[in-house]
Amino acid sequence: MLGILKQLALMDATRSFVKISSKELADRIGQSLQTAARKLKELEENGMIERVLDKDGQFIAINEKGKKLLYKEYLEYKKIFERGESIIITGKAMSGVGEGRYYVSLQGYRKQFIEKLNFDPFPGTLNIKINKEHLYFRRKLDEEEGVKIEGFSTEDRTFGEVKAFRCRINGIEGAVVLPQRTHYPADIIEVISEVRIREKLNLKDGDTVNVEVIF
Amino acid sequence: MLGILKQLALMDATRSFVKISSKELADRIGQSLQTAARKLKELEENGMIERVLDKDGQFIAINEKGKKLLYKEYLEYKKIFERGESIIITGKAMSGVGEGRYYVSLQGYRKQFIEKLNFDPFPGTLNIKINKEHLYFRRKLDEEEGVKIEGFSTEDRTFGEVKAFRCRINGIEGAVVLPQRTHYPADIIEVISEVRIREKLNLKDGDTVNVEVIF
Repeated sequence: MLGILKQLALMDATRSFVKISSKELADRIGQSLQTAARKLKELEENGMIERVLDKDGQFIAINEKGKKLLYKEYLEYKKIFERGESIIITGKAMSGVGEGRYYVSLQGYRKQFIEKLNFDPFPGTLNIKINKEHLYFRRKLDEEEGVKIEGFSTEDRTFGEVKAFRCRINGIEGAVVLPQRTHYPADIIEVISEVRIREKLNLKDGDTVNVEVIF
Repeated sequence: MLGILKQLALMDATRSFVKISSKELADRIGQSLQTAARKLKELEENGMIERVLDKDGQFIAINEKGKKLLYKEYLEYKKIFERGESIIITGKAMSGVGEGRYYVSLQGYRKQFIEKLNFDPFPGTLNIKINKEHLYFRRKLDEEEGVKIEGFSTEDRTFGEVKAFRCRINGIEGAVVLPQRTHYPADIIEVISEVRIREKLNLKDGDTVNVEVIF
C-alpha cells in the first residue's frame, strides 16, 4: 500500500489530482492490473486517497491521512541517513604485547597525533579483538581514507605510515590507529586516547566494547 | 522486504551489527515469525544483509547493497517532501459577470494588493470553474491563512475582507482572491495578475488551466 502511495506522490498527487489509469499505475509499480486495482481500493477504503472517475478518466489525489503516512516514512528515512557518518565496531578488550606503547611514544608519530588528531596520546593502546564473523564494519576502515599519519626514519630504521580514525569508545574520545605496512591481524584494532582507556573504563580482558568510528 | 530493512536500519544496522532474534523482529514489524524469518532469508539471498548466528544469538548488519536500496527510498521521500509547499488546482476558464473588474479597481483593495502581493493588478479577474469532484485542493484554501486583505468602508457601503494566495498560472505570477463574506460558489476561484491573464494565455471559455498555489 505504501509503495503505490509513494508512487502516486512522486507523480505529484500530494498536491494535485493526477490523471492515471489503473493499468498505467500497474505498469509503474511493476505489478498486475488486478493487484494495482486492489491496492487502490484499499487506499480508498482506508481514507488515504481521493479518487474520481469521470468521462475524462481516473483522477487520484492523496489526502491528509495519506500524506501523514508518507511523512512518517520520510521522517524515518531522514533519521537513518541524517545522523552523520559513523559506524560501530564491537569487540572484546584484550591485552597487547606492549608494542603499542612503544610506537605511540615515538616523537615522529606523537607530534602528528597532537597536530592532526588534537590530543596527546597516553603511551599505550587498547587492543580490541573483533569476532571474525563481525568483520564487515572493520573492513570499511580499509576503504575509507581516514587521517594520514606519515611514516618517518630514524638512524636505525624506518617507521611506516599509519591510518587513523577519530572514534568514541564508551564515551571517551580517541582514535583507531591502523599501521599500513605491517601484517597486523585484521580482526584486531588498536585504540589510542589522551587517557588510559582500560583504566578509565575499568576494562578486563574479554569485556565487550563498542568503538564508534566517526568519518 | 523494504519494510524489514528499514526497521533494521532504524535499529542502527547500517552502521553496526545489531543483535536481534527473528521473533523480536517479527514483533517489531507486526508480522508472524515465519514471515519475518522468510523475509530475512530473502534479504540475505539478495545480498542486502550480513547475518551471523552464533552462541550469543543472531546478529544482523545492512551492507552496501541494502544501504543503497534504502538510500534510493530516502531520496524519493525527500523529493516528495522537500519541494516546497504548493498545490495545483485544475479547472476551466470561464467568463465572469464583470464584478471582479469593479472590485479589483477599488482603491481600498488595490493599494493592499500592491503592498502585500507586490503587484498592481490588471482591473479584472480570471474566473476558473473547478470540477465539483476535484474540490479537495480548493478546500485547502479555506484551511490556510493566506494573505489577509482587509475590508474597508466608503460613504455608501462596506467591503468585506478578502483572503489572497500567491499563485502561478501557466507560468504567470498572480494571486487567487477569495472574498470572505460573500456566498461565492466554492467551485469557482478568481485569479488576479499584473497582466490580463486571459489574453496573455490566449484562453477561451472551457480551456483547462492549472493554478499552482504557493504557501
